[in-house]
Amino acid sequence: MQLEKYQVDEHNQSLLAEHKRRFEFTAHGVANIEDVLQKLTAFQIAIPSWALGTGGTRFGRFAGAGEPRSLEEKIEDIGLLHALNKSSGAISLHIPWDIPKNADAIKILAAQHGIRFDAVNSNTFQDQKDQKHSYKFGSLQHVNKAVRDQAIEHNLEVIHYGKALGSDSITVWLSDGSCFPGQLNFRKAFQHTLDGLQQVYAALPDNWKMFVEYKAFEPNFYSMTVGDWGQSLLYASKLGPKAYTLVDLGHHLPNANIEQIVSLLLMEKKLGGFHFNDSKYGDDDLTVGSIRPYQLFLIFNELIEGMDARGMNHATDLGWMIDASHNVKDPLEDLLQSVEAIKLAYAQALLVNRRELEQAQQENDVTRAQEILQAAYRTDVRPLVAEARLRAGAALQPLTLFRKLKVRTELVKERGAKTVATGL
Amino acid sequence: MQLEKYQVDEHNQSLLAEHKRRFEFTAHGVANIEDVLQKLTAFQIAIPSWALGTGGTRFGRFAGAGEPRSLEEKIEDIGLLHALNKSSGAISLHIPWDIPKNADAIKILAAQHGIRFDAVNSNTFQDQKDQKHSYKFGSLQHVNKAVRDQAIEHNLEVIHYGKALGSDSITVWLSDGSCFPGQLNFRKAFQHTLDGLQQVYAALPDNWKMFVEYKAFEPNFYSMTVGDWGQSLLYASKLGPKAYTLVDLGHHLPNANIEQIVSLLLMEKKLGGFHFNDSKYGDDDLTVGSIRPYQLFLIFNELIEGMDARGMNHATDLGWMIDASHNVKDPLEDLLQSVEAIKLAYAQALLVNRRELEQAQQENDVTRAQEILQAAYRTDVRPLVAEARLRAGAALQPLTLFRKLKVRTELVKERGAKTVATGL
Amino acid sequence: MQLEKYQVDEHNQSLLAEHKRRFEFTAHGVANIEDVLQKLTAFQIAIPSWALGTGGTRFGRFAGAGEPRSLEEKIEDIGLLHALNKSSGAISLHIPWDIPKNADAIKILAAQHGIRFDAVNSNTFQDQKDQKHSYKFGSLQHVNKAVRDQAIEHNLEVIHYGKALGSDSITVWLSDGSCFPGQLNFRKAFQHTLDGLQQVYAALPDNWKMFVEYKAFEPNFYSMTVGDWGQSLLYASKLGPKAYTLVDLGHHLPNANIEQIVSLLLMEKKLGGFHFNDSKYGDDDLTVGSIRPYQLFLIFNELIEGMDARGMNHATDLGWMIDASHNVKDPLEDLLQSVEAIKLAYAQALLVNRRELEQAQQENDVTRAQEILQAAYRTDVRPLVAEARLRAGAALQPLTLFRKLKVRTELVKERGAKTVATGL
Amino acid sequence: MQLEKYQVDEHNQSLLAEHKRRFEFTAHGVANIEDVLQKLTAFQIAIPSWALGTGGTRFGRFAGAGEPRSLEEKIEDIGLLHALNKSSGAISLHIPWDIPKNADAIKILAAQHGIRFDAVNSNTFQDQKDQKHSYKFGSLQHVNKAVRDQAIEHNLEVIHYGKALGSDSITVWLSDGSCFPGQLNFRKAFQHTLDGLQQVYAALPDNWKMFVEYKAFEPNFYSMTVGDWGQSLLYASKLGPKAYTLVDLGHHLPNANIEQIVSLLLMEKKLGGFHFNDSKYGDDDLTVGSIRPYQLFLIFNELIEGMDARGMNHATDLGWMIDASHNVKDPLEDLLQSVEAIKLAYAQALLVNRRELEQAQQENDVTRAQEILQAAYRTDVRPLVAEARLRAGAALQPLTLFRKLKVRTELVKERGAKTVATGL
Repeated sequence: MQLEKYQVDEHNQSLLAEHKRRFEFTAHGVANIEDVLQKLTAFQIAIPSWALGTGGTRFGRFAGAGEPRSLEEKIEDIGLLHALNKSSGAISLHIPWDIPKNADAIKILAAQHGIRFDAVNSNTFQDQKDQKHSYKFGSLQHVNKAVRDQAIEHNLEVIHYGKALGSDSITVWLSDGSCFPGQLNFRKAFQHTLDGLQQVYAALPDNWKMFVEYKAFEPNFYSMTVGDWGQSLLYASKLGPKAYTLVDLGHHLPNANIEQIVSLLLMEKKLGGFHFNDSKYGDDDLTVGSIRPYQLFLIFNELIEGMDARGMNHATDLGWMIDASHNVKDPLEDLLQSVEAIKLAYAQALLVNRRELEQAQQENDVTRAQEILQAAYRTDVRPLVAEARLRAGAALQPLTLFRKLKVRTELVKERGAKTVATGL
Repeated sequence: MQLEKYQVDEHNQSLLAEHKRRFEFTAHGVANIEDVLQKLTAFQIAIPSWALGTGGTRFGRFAGAGEPRSLEEKIEDIGLLHALNKSSGAISLHIPWDIPKNADAIKILAAQHGIRFDAVNSNTFQDQKDQKHSYKFGSLQHVNKAVRDQAIEHNLEVIHYGKALGSDSITVWLSDGSCFPGQLNFRKAFQHTLDGLQQVYAALPDNWKMFVEYKAFEPNFYSMTVGDWGQSLLYASKLGPKAYTLVDLGHHLPNANIEQIVSLLLMEKKLGGFHFNDSKYGDDDLTVGSIRPYQLFLIFNELIEGMDARGMNHATDLGWMIDASHNVKDPLEDLLQSVEAIKLAYAQALLVNRRELEQAQQENDVTRAQEILQAAYRTDVRPLVAEARLRAGAALQPLTLFRKLKVRTELVKERGAKTVATGL
Repeated sequence: MQLEKYQVDEHNQSLLAEHKRRFEFTAHGVANIEDVLQKLTAFQIAIPSWALGTGGTRFGRFAGAGEPRSLEEKIEDIGLLHALNKSSGAISLHIPWDIPKNADAIKILAAQHGIRFDAVNSNTFQDQKDQKHSYKFGSLQHVNKAVRDQAIEHNLEVIHYGKALGSDSITVWLSDGSCFPGQLNFRKAFQHTLDGLQQVYAALPDNWKMFVEYKAFEPNFYSMTVGDWGQSLLYASKLGPKAYTLVDLGHHLPNANIEQIVSLLLMEKKLGGFHFNDSKYGDDDLTVGSIRPYQLFLIFNELIEGMDARGMNHATDLGWMIDASHNVKDPLEDLLQSVEAIKLAYAQALLVNRRELEQAQQENDVTRAQEILQAAYRTDVRPLVAEARLRAGAALQPLTLFRKLKVRTELVKERGAKTVATGL
Repeated sequence: MQLEKYQVDEHNQSLLAEHKRRFEFTAHGVANIEDVLQKLTAFQIAIPSWALGTGGTRFGRFAGAGEPRSLEEKIEDIGLLHALNKSSGAISLHIPWDIPKNADAIKILAAQHGIRFDAVNSNTFQDQKDQKHSYKFGSLQHVNKAVRDQAIEHNLEVIHYGKALGSDSITVWLSDGSCFPGQLNFRKAFQHTLDGLQQVYAALPDNWKMFVEYKAFEPNFYSMTVGDWGQSLLYASKLGPKAYTLVDLGHHLPNANIEQIVSLLLMEKKLGGFHFNDSKYGDDDLTVGSIRPYQLFLIFNELIEGMDARGMNHATDLGWMIDASHNVKDPLEDLLQSVEAIKLAYAQALLVNRRELEQAQQENDVTRAQEILQAAYRTDVRPLVAEARLRAGAALQPLTLFRKLKVRTELVKERGAKTVATGL
């Protein structure tokens, strides 16, 4: 299924008058409105190839219908999202779930949808059929060199696929760790992992980045070998200038101040990218902005502050990706909501009066600093994000149009009700 | 495979002299040593039928080998455990994973192994093949009466199976809840759930108990409809005298004081049973005693205090069950370690000088109260637990004997390497 | 210092045109706008007498200036707040920090400021000079009857003061608990506490309520004798119909779902009142809405849903109080921000389309349920809250006016820079 | 008050026979028993000068009696501890609470008690009387250079006092941070702090170390400028080879794996020292080993593994200090319990069969690895620690002797009941 331009136009036309009223009200008083709109338009969030099917937990999975059965259909799904919001113009590929059999054909297909290839992802947290060695006790950390070599080899293969598609970064998330005290020698696990990452790093094309993702717990429940930003930064620093830390919002201990981590990683020139999602307890992988929207805003506040301080390009100098699991919502609807939440937080953060905030900080005027932040946060920026979409040729209300066009029903017709997308 | 008495005897004989030395040292000064040994012997922990195979996480599962392929083989596994430790003389059955096709034959088989049937467990957290309605949005809480009725019907069926096997309790764990704000009306979800439980309660045989298990999060990540002991107690109180709260050690928010919960539930005459496991982050389902052995001791300290205050029988008046997931250990070895950890904690708690503790509490002598507790905890009670085993005809060192007899190798020979037990 | 009507009027006049523009935009499409405004106006939040001075931590306290030196000056402070926002028309008194020497005079003074007396608060967590028995090891839970009697006596005295002032409720927060395993017999501590509360309950005037506040930890760091909502509900249920649970937002374990607790307590007819604040780690006592504004909205969403379901009056049927500590902000500014945050959350929750939400819940339309909630939350309701203030004769922008009038400077002139208000 | 040798001897004599029986049983089978005893004897834990009085919380403080009124009396207290256990032969001094007026006299006094001076501690988390600038908004992080300079100056003064007493390290714990989003520019706060630390570092004598302590929260409740080990390591790495991270057991987010942090810091040659205590919720500062004794053992297990791997001297190459708050126990009794708990954990960790553990790790034999660790942990090592004390001339049961000699009663006689030691 593909969206036609006239469908978007009709939708927009019917909402235009009310949109204009709301946009004009909101834009009033935003001095740099054109700059804000331009930044909102430029900001694209990559969709992970594994998030287009229904997710599950260890207790089970309640399948949806009309899920994509192939990489081609996944690109079709993202194409639909992108046609609706012009903000999802990238895909983050997972190997081996989505090995492109014909890279050139896939590139052409993606290009037709206006989609580029963001970071490719390796998987050494599961055993694949016919795999020689098991990752039951880890991959790069493993005590057995043969297992480590296999994991390194897999990462090289992922780079290979990424190169063929025009990607320029690899995200390495290792589930390596231990479930019980005594299981692991932490130091040796670190050193094996570092050694493996170094070998992968050595194979990086010149213009590539490596993102070292950390996670506090799960699927290992005692220790994780890349467990927090401190560890990730250690690896990235030892690896070299092409290695960066990747922050996944759900990968922290309770109450962690993620926005401070973001700020310090930017200071160290070692923040590489983001996995957006939301959570209440652990890596719950819920819709972005569904639980802690203010925290999301605070993170964007630090991102803008830190990136601007270094003259970075918001849209292109970090990797922006969603990483979520859609257990009870239609995956496409969930992704539309997530992208919207990210853009709203970004828009709010763009409205922060930085000059005044800095002055309040200089004067230790804590009350005023909060007022400044919350003045931006409390602003209803939905019309700004909608206007940016309108100018980019997308729908004023992507979710409304998605439902009105009965996209999922169409997909079920095309693909069947009992399809299962690869993924968790 | 079945253990022969001579195998245990030979093993014990080889270790007897050293055991005697250690036991005599430890028993020295334990005034009520015979009472302690008798209680240790009487104390049996039920093994859940789903914990005999390798567990997994949402990220995958690394299978073991020689897993039981049927209920009969599961009983065989527990029979092996019980022959080794004479402390695992019960099975907690999961329906529909382990529906007994021929209840009488199963009862005879279990009796041959000295195993009785503890609480039966219902499952409305997964959809079974050919199930009419899905539990994607809950079971007893569901907005649709047809789904609720199906879930009630399933629980009645579970009671039916339990009766046939001689069980006298049902554990109802509901994964019902919500993943997002707004998804659920909490009050209506509670009331639907209460209504459903009442219908199940009405079908309980006179001598049965119903255990209402609570859990803070997972697989729902925003709210759980039986989320904490307060909610479970509300249900149990409204249901009636046969309804009790069941405590699973891993089902709490971070830092919860579980021992206090245990004490208060006993005070309210509403503690029904236990699911033992250990955890660091959430419902990690690790080996009992592998992470927080002192907390386990403190829980047993409250159990003894509270049960004795009401003249309860330690061994029979509460349901003692393990509920764990064996992701990186051999399930049978894990269960041997778990049972051992439970017995050690129980033995330590039996050694607490309660008269002196009460006196210290009366005097607000906090230092002394801690000394009294830790004097018991720091005692090496392994010889006591071993002696109780010896007298019961079990092995002095169950795990050592398990390995020496190459039990798993035998099971793989019998069952094959690629078996998969039902369960998570 | 007292605010003059003309000062408020001048301020409002200067902002009126812009306010009108914003209000009209926002009100557009709010069908029940008058009802919303009326409810906002009626909603008053009590200010605690101990929150008018600078707060501290165990590591120290950095005093402010111009703090109130007497109960009269505290009432003056709240009078200033109320003149600015017409939303702080009540005081919650702490005994013995604020014992009214002449109740009648105090009542007259408060009435002049339009302030009524909300719940009175007892204090058995500190030793007062010349107190006979120490609360080092608890008050109502204490092993020594003489200590318990002293604590009961104190609570009766608090009721006595409350009656004289026209209060009709008492909040009992007990810091009782233990710092170490073994220190306490949990059951006996509960029973002593219940017995003491029963004696206080027996002395309640007919029209009074007793609020039993719970707290997870601090200042006791192992157990708390009224530690969670489950325990508080147990006490309240055993006490009788005049006893209720009081929820303080900062008194929970990490990640607790407070909004669900609120819903269930309303269902049980046992929710009595609220202590508003915000926090990231524990009982941080930060400005309301400064850390988790979305959670605050979700709580109000449940409050409205649950109160409406029982036909309760939002403004008067629960006790609404702030309980915060102002370590780095001017206390009056902090309170202005807190009251504003509460009203904004209340306004957003009033905008939730409940009919549609219920329908979405009935259809398990999780995506839509989130859209409905967030549509209300993302609305910029500041103009609504400002309009309600305008109509009530308060300032359009209370904080702006507070600063413009240099209220704190005036207070320092009157009271001096080195004053210290009673409190923590 | 001073302990006489004959008092210790009499005490030991009365317990000797039973001790011998127990020691011989335990020593049996410990191959390297003499090495273990020697290490236990050499291991000394510094007592902080602020922990000899009763601690408090922000809600109040319940004073004890007979608290030391001067630095001299604090040294006398530690002298008593050391006479009892020969394991507390060091003091960690806090400036300005314990400024030595006559350094030479203090040195002589300490030497008479066999006490050396461990790390000195600076305090920029409180304002001292007559201090020019306030630390309300931080010290080294402060936006105002004058405040930063004052804080630097204070640290130089602390080094000055330390040099005079023969200390060779300084612990810098900064409470710097923020209570509200927006209050701080994280990056600038970091850079100011780094700059300040560099100036202090520059003034370090050649043989000195600087310990950079981190803490997750409290007294700031939104962000801490040295908030976790990752940040501390960043500072220490940028400062140079004399700068190290200091780990306080209570300064982490919930569920943090502290033992892994210890291992990695040792790997990086950046672990400098330890503040021992225990906790359930936050920085509860409870008696060491009172809540999570197994975690303490696991930490020592990593310490030994990591130090041995680098050929470090257990006793002297790291700074071992207690940092606790004694709210409900006699401070001296609490310290005796804490030192005992540390030594027991150290002894257990010394008993771990490292060769076998390494082999089990090499074979991914998780079950066996746990057995090896717990075999050591479950051993009752109290007789070993007692024997080490006996050989060093200390008491077999320090706490028993402390009580038998009525030490506190004596101190109250000497000092009075209403004394208050400086500290929190």
